[in-house]
Amino acid sequence: MPQTPDPQTSRLDAQFAFLNEADRLKSVLRATTLCDGSRRENSGEHSWHLALYAMVLADQAPPDVSIDRVIRMLILHDLVEIDVGDVPIHSANGAAHASLETQAAEQRAADRIFGLLPADLAHSFRALWDEFEAAETPDAVFAKSLDRVQPVLANLLSGGGTWTTYSVTWDQLESRVGNKIARGAPRIWDWVKAQVRPFFGG
Amino acid sequence: MPQTPDPQTSRLDAQFAFLNEADRLKSVLRATTLCDGSRRENSGEHSWHLALYAMVLADQAPPDVSIDRVIRMLILHDLVEIDVGDVPIHSANGAAHASLETQAAEQRAADRIFGLLPADLAHSFRALWDEFEAAETPDAVFAKSLDRVQPVLANLLSGGGTWTTYSVTWDQLESRVGNKIARGAPRIWDWVKAQVRPFFGG
Ligand SMILES: [Ca+2]
Repeated sequence: MPQTPDPQTSRLDAQFAFLNEADRLKSVLRATTLCDGSRRENSGEHSWHLALYAMVLADQAPPDVSIDRVIRMLILHDLVEIDVGDVPIHSANGAAHASLETQAAEQRAADRIFGLLPADLAHSFRALWDEFEAAETPDAVFAKSLDRVQPVLANLLSGGGTWTTYSVTWDQLESRVGNKIARGAPRIWDWVKAQVRPFFGG
Repeated sequence: MPQTPDPQTSRLDAQFAFLNEADRLKSVLRATTLCDGSRRENSGEHSWHLALYAMVLADQAPPDVSIDRVIRMLILHDLVEIDVGDVPIHSANGAAHASLETQAAEQRAADRIFGLLPADLAHSFRALWDEFEAAETPDAVFAKSLDRVQPVLANLLSGGGTWTTYSVTWDQLESRVGNKIARGAPRIWDWVKAQVRPFFGG
């Protein structure tokens, strides 16, 4: 007689199937390098750094932001890149990042990857990722601001990074990046702007 | 007349000094490889993976555990390795990991690295790291269990990993790793044990 699978065991099977698949995010390379310029950054370590950004810069968030929810969002936010890869914000003259094609591919990736989880977790993780992508709630707006700040520091410290790769101008940086940082974290953008402006001859 | 520094600006100076220094954790290599065996894992991406473990395996924690505190602990737990490096658990026949010398070096590293932060954050981050290291509170015990589980999966999926490097026996795995996982997450260890036992000829 076939054994009935223990529900506890099948749940752990699904939990570890997801965790093992998630390991692949460490092999997705971004356009940005580490701060020392030694190699390209991967999306796993980028996600860790952003979670740390949220812990450190919590006092810059509006009072209605839950930093613990922001941290969870940032831990999940790039998982779809396992299937889709990272789309650099300055590539295709700034147009590739938010293309409808990219968005559809990311939706399919989210279906597959979060679908590995037990149903309750698949639902709650997907809801958190959808919220991040929509960039409307205070938590998502702050999380998106941090996601835009961190590569600016990496470019600055590594001597230009993707600004050089994609011949980015100050106006492009301000419209593609600065305005989005300022939306969720205006004082952070003021501080970062003062650091970065001289690089662009300002 | 010299300008008085804006306290808001000096605070952000310190916050970013810490975040930029933290970037170096991405260059600290562990003995363990990625699950596909393609390269050694670094401590930054490892910390991200553990935070995801906490989110996914939350239902395995005792009811008095705060998963959000566990996530924060895991994000911080390896930062001292920027100065000290990773000490593989199976190296020096299992004796190097908890040596007094290693512990003293980690304390000095924590002084320096958390000391980059504004005083309030330096204090709260250090307290969370001290709590993790002491492994006494329910949050720290669960966090430590996850930190022990993840390399087991990486070794299993990559075909042996550090078990092969350090000629680890089943009894050594059970005493150095299994007992610590079982302390915080007994059902996870039961599940993992069933996956791993055949590798050791069980
Ligand atoms: Ca990102």
